[in-house]
Amino acid sequence: MSEFDPSTHPHRRLNPLTNEHVLVSPHRNKRPWLGQTEAPQVTSLPQYDSDCYLCPGNVRSGGQRNPVYDQTYTFVNDFAAVLPPPAPSAPLAPHPLLTTEPVHGACDVLIFHPRHDLTLARLAVEDIGRVIDQWIHIYRQRGSQDGIRYVQIFENKGAIMGCSNPHPHGQVWSLSEVPTLPATEIASLKRYSFSGSPASEAPRGPKGRPCLLCDYAHLEMHQQERIVVQNEYWVAVVPWWAIWPFEILLLPYKRHIPSIAHLSAEEKSALANILVKITTRYDNLFSCSFAYSMGIHQRPTPSSSSQDEDEQDDIAHLHFHFSPPLLRSATIRKFLVGFELMSEAQRDLTPEQAAGRLRDCSEVHYLDKE
Amino acid sequence: MSEFDPSTHPHRRLNPLTNEHVLVSPHRNKRPWLGQTEAPQVTSLPQYDSDCYLCPGNVRSGGQRNPVYDQTYTFVNDFAAVLPPPAPSAPLAPHPLLTTEPVHGACDVLIFHPRHDLTLARLAVEDIGRVIDQWIHIYRQRGSQDGIRYVQIFENKGAIMGCSNPHPHGQVWSLSEVPTLPATEIASLKRYSFSGSPASEAPRGPKGRPCLLCDYAHLEMHQQERIVVQNEYWVAVVPWWAIWPFEILLLPYKRHIPSIAHLSAEEKSALANILVKITTRYDNLFSCSFAYSMGIHQRPTPSSSSQDEDEQDDIAHLHFHFSPPLLRSATIRKFLVGFELMSEAQRDLTPEQAAGRLRDCSEVHYLDKE
Ligand SMILES: [Zn+2]
Ligand SMILES: [Zn+2]
Repeated sequence: MSEFDPSTHPHRRLNPLTNEHVLVSPHRNKRPWLGQTEAPQVTSLPQYDSDCYLCPGNVRSGGQRNPVYDQTYTFVNDFAAVLPPPAPSAPLAPHPLLTTEPVHGACDVLIFHPRHDLTLARLAVEDIGRVIDQWIHIYRQRGSQDGIRYVQIFENKGAIMGCSNPHPHGQVWSLSEVPTLPATEIASLKRYSFSGSPASEAPRGPKGRPCLLCDYAHLEMHQQERIVVQNEYWVAVVPWWAIWPFEILLLPYKRHIPSIAHLSAEEKSALANILVKITTRYDNLFSCSFAYSMGIHQRPTPSSSSQDEDEQDDIAHLHFHFSPPLLRSATIRKFLVGFELMSEAQRDLTPEQAAGRLRDCSEVHYLDKE
Repeated sequence: MSEFDPSTHPHRRLNPLTNEHVLVSPHRNKRPWLGQTEAPQVTSLPQYDSDCYLCPGNVRSGGQRNPVYDQTYTFVNDFAAVLPPPAPSAPLAPHPLLTTEPVHGACDVLIFHPRHDLTLARLAVEDIGRVIDQWIHIYRQRGSQDGIRYVQIFENKGAIMGCSNPHPHGQVWSLSEVPTLPATEIASLKRYSFSGSPASEAPRGPKGRPCLLCDYAHLEMHQQERIVVQNEYWVAVVPWWAIWPFEILLLPYKRHIPSIAHLSAEEKSALANILVKITTRYDNLFSCSFAYSMGIHQRPTPSSSSQDEDEQDDIAHLHFHFSPPLLRSATIRKFLVGFELMSEAQRDLTPEQAAGRLRDCSEVHYLDKE
């Protein structure tokens, strides 16, 4: 029997943040591609689109008019998934299997820039700095409102992700409950901090206890196999347990940082810098505006008091997830269906191979070349 | 403050099988639809397609030729995600955060019928009976092979699900590990069986202990609010915790049944009957061949001995999940992106409203009308 080789033999890897596995089938990379392979569409967008409800000065579907903003602009989503308090109180469940929790909160839209045709990859580093400042502002503002227990910042980019408007923007949903995935991750971070993890030179979490993500970033910096790009404070990897072909986990590795509100000026500017590098490599991979969902996971809300429970929240370690669906070209996507929907995530390309592909991409945007 | 009304007020519901929540935003149903609304394409397929690698007598991409089968036909996937044993043994993980499990197994393809143009909704009940018999045969055969710990039967239907071949077929992946989702569900069923659930007239699981799914089916039969269709042995509901707009959970409600190998002749024929009714209602909802992923969850493998661990597996309660992506028409789909990928599943239409829509559909297939 041959030696085990993770770039050849089928195997499973564990995601320690969610306790879910991914089935890796690297031998399938030899499989012929039978589906469509189209040339990427090079669409050129106008700098201003009179039909875009996000462009400066235009009227939104809810009837309100955007100001002629010149940097970022934030407004409350006209069709929010959650509504401001008060929410009616919880009804008595007829049975524990039929429980209902009323929820309240707010959904904000954050426009990154007035230009209709730009994306994070093509914004100046200073413009991205302004987006980061707005994220921090909204996180602080919504996170200190009565009853808000989590502020979820995310961006959904690309028609292939169901986002029909290319105008660069993200969203922030603030909720009276900690949502499923962040709650699961925080529970894993707590468990890990009390486990006997192997001794390491990695930074430590609150009270000198081990932090899952400090330890993980430290391992990746040591191995260098899955790193896409790194700078003085941040490292972007295709994680060991990645589900999406070119999934990226971006996190600070020098110290334990619970939230974006804890970032120093240098850490913020290094973040702007690495965000441009990640999104530029993404666009260059298949010479197209690369679709993804991006989300920030961090301390549920900013620190507000010195209560015990509040301090426990510092166990969160700030990180960004990028989940892009593209697989082999600008037009071939991965579908999470069949076995993946019913049983377990599965991938063919290994995370190490994906990281290598992204490392090989230029940091000069393909539209800025020649 | 108004009374809580689940058809109006934002709230969360818990999925007791996965311990994940879904955020329900019923007030958003009033939202205007701004995206595309196209008429469904009525494509007429040939009964035999010389380019289809699943049609009788044709050559597959791996080079082998299908026999001229006249009922069902099963073959090993030419590009399987897992390979037969022996798998190389597990390497020593350099750190608990980087663990690898070698996996072995088999991937089978099950063609439901020789006709290229049919689907479960348009097969005769006897033809579906043959598909069920094949599922049982493969479950028994693969499930008794050395080292196989789970047999996952599923169907992935529709181009919108990445399935480019309309020839009616499903797949069976048999693995040396219990995959993430079935393992999570079985753990929940175990926990529930030892919890003090409220007294009920529902059937009981092994050793007279409560079964989460027996109790749940019993509640649904009592409330009747989320039932799409029911017959003497089976009930199909849009579950309390559904994520997909028209998601369906199909399960036996008369007695605790661990697997398809435990079905009586009457239960099997009632299953064939309700599968036609579900898929016909699906097709009629938007007058199109309705896309979905379907998966069977059950006892990991058939009973083989009287060992303690083997008996514990009887705690599984056989059920079918249907996850369809369509939302408002044959061409408007739900995307699991942004907040849903990063935080928590979300839906606008309530499960009760979705069940009502499906109940209102005819059981005569739209292509058989006029
Ligand atoms: Zn996370
Ligand atoms: Zn299940």
